[in-house]
Amino acid sequence: MIMCGPVEQQLEKYLHDHIPISQALGLKVLVAGPERVLLSAPLAPNINHRNTAFGGSIAAVATLAGWTWLHVMLRERSSLPRVVIRSSKIDYLLPIDEDFTAELRPPNDEAYERFIESLDRRGSGRLSLTVEVICRGEVAATLEGEFVAIAT
Amino acid sequence: MIMCGPVEQQLEKYLHDHIPISQALGLKVLVAGPERVLLSAPLAPNINHRNTAFGGSIAAVATLAGWTWLHVMLRERSSLPRVVIRSSKIDYLLPIDEDFTAELRPPNDEAYERFIESLDRRGSGRLSLTVEVICRGEVAATLEGEFVAIAT
Repeated sequence: MIMCGPVEQQLEKYLHDHIPISQALGLKVLVAGPERVLLSAPLAPNINHRNTAFGGSIAAVATLAGWTWLHVMLRERSSLPRVVIRSSKIDYLLPIDEDFTAELRPPNDEAYERFIESLDRRGSGRLSLTVEVICRGEVAATLEGEFVAIAT
Repeated sequence: MIMCGPVEQQLEKYLHDHIPISQALGLKVLVAGPERVLLSAPLAPNINHRNTAFGGSIAAVATLAGWTWLHVMLRERSSLPRVVIRSSKIDYLLPIDEDFTAELRPPNDEAYERFIESLDRRGSGRLSLTVEVICRGEVAATLEGEFVAIAT
């Protein structure tokens, strides 16, 4: 069991309050740091007619993992940029028949530096993030999302 | 206003009962026929921290449009195949700040015939479907999903 710290609890409340469908998904923020974001969702509210997780729920949880990581990385800036998703591609690899997690591991430093440099210089930057959705210890889906941050 | 017929009401109930997140999305089935599937969702339950629709909700509604069309097309067969989504790509083109719809128009006849032929001969077939998400009369997102039907 992962004991969630105050940062995780605060972010979970923020998501539930501001993106209410995250509450319907049963989303929990287990880890939210610069090195790793790990979200979880129970199967029950996300079930489909085949008793596996609905693809749309999987995509939603994976998208939130990307957004949460960027939020963690950018919130120390003097003015919080607006973060939006521009496009994403998801591959569904295995049926999900249990509770699942979505894990973001950061992109390489160089890609992140280019993103920040573009945000500072041009007022916007784009960054590709990869999220793995895990069920029963196996990668059941991968999402590659292109996120855009816009200075406000 | 679109008056929904019994087919639409029945499908909406099926989705709400078997894919419960569709109820949380506020999903309605406006049209469900071989020529067109049109689903709608209200903004309120799908809102994000910027008061526009959350990308994950948009992906979920668009995915359901593809699934619903295949369900309509395949349910007259003697044995209903299992329909799953294998992969999808979504482009978010405009922010959605009002209730929105997801509309599937059928693929060309040739692609559909190849799909059915493969399902009959090999026990499975795959088909790419395109869904447009419309808000205020404009295409706000497009989803291209690859669906697979497996004979049961």
